[in-house]
Amino acid sequence: MKRKILAGIIIALVVAGAAYAQFAKPEQAIKYRKSVMFLIAQHFGRMGAMVKGETPYQQDDFAQNAAVVDMLAALPWDAFKEPGADKGDTTMSSAVFQQPEKFRAAAASFESETAKLADVAEDGNLDAAKAQFGKVAQSCKSCHTEFRVK
Amino acid sequence: MKRKILAGIIIALVVAGAAYAQFAKPEQAIKYRKSVMFLIAQHFGRMGAMVKGETPYQQDDFAQNAAVVDMLAALPWDAFKEPGADKGDTTMSSAVFQQPEKFRAAAASFESETAKLADVAEDGNLDAAKAQFGKVAQSCKSCHTEFRVK
Repeated sequence: MKRKILAGIIIALVVAGAAYAQFAKPEQAIKYRKSVMFLIAQHFGRMGAMVKGETPYQQDDFAQNAAVVDMLAALPWDAFKEPGADKGDTTMSSAVFQQPEKFRAAAASFESETAKLADVAEDGNLDAAKAQFGKVAQSCKSCHTEFRVK
Repeated sequence: MKRKILAGIIIALVVAGAAYAQFAKPEQAIKYRKSVMFLIAQHFGRMGAMVKGETPYQQDDFAQNAAVVDMLAALPWDAFKEPGADKGDTTMSSAVFQQPEKFRAAAASFESETAKLADVAEDGNLDAAKAQFGKVAQSCKSCHTEFRVK
């Protein structure tokens, strides 16, 4: 619960601070996004291995990874606002600029689902964790289908 | 204060989870470290611009960046334990493996100083924030001098 309250504060601060966010150039925004997404993928993958039974389910470990993904989920969005950051060495689709409200909704959905996963993971029920893990995966896929180019 | 309690929980979990942390190969650990360090540098740099007066001091923005750095500060250490992750496209020094206790102390110092910065930033006194920002910068420099190769 404490984690949840904090997450709310952090997200509020990140949103509030968006107007001041700065990247020296579009390449920095791209590198920022890639860094966050790589970290999310690493921690999500560790949970996925437990969900699939490839590694033993360890509640503390699962919950730790879920908490880290929940924290990271608040970070990448400002870096999608940077003009020109849909060009170059990136898979970001220009649809992000063309459909900003739809993109914001997709981002909010991801943040919401990851927060729920962190809560469920703390509770420790593996079946519930698996179900919510699937919802987060669906949220990833949905946003990537719309807003990521191959 | 809530943030502080949560940070403690997260750090405890990360430490507890260290035994389960896995990277598919050393290159993944290197990429993980670089991703975290790039993100820390971005957020630290935004605070630095305010400390130097290059951008206006905005307490909320400063506190947001300090909170993000505090969260990220818990993440990179497992990736320094991966065998072979001191070789290849990295500036990690093999001294990390040769002097593990000294490295752990340096890492703990960084986590402690970033936690203090997040606290001070919440309070909002710019002079105190500047002073603590300097201590974090010193912590970066000290660890890089010992454990990073040019």
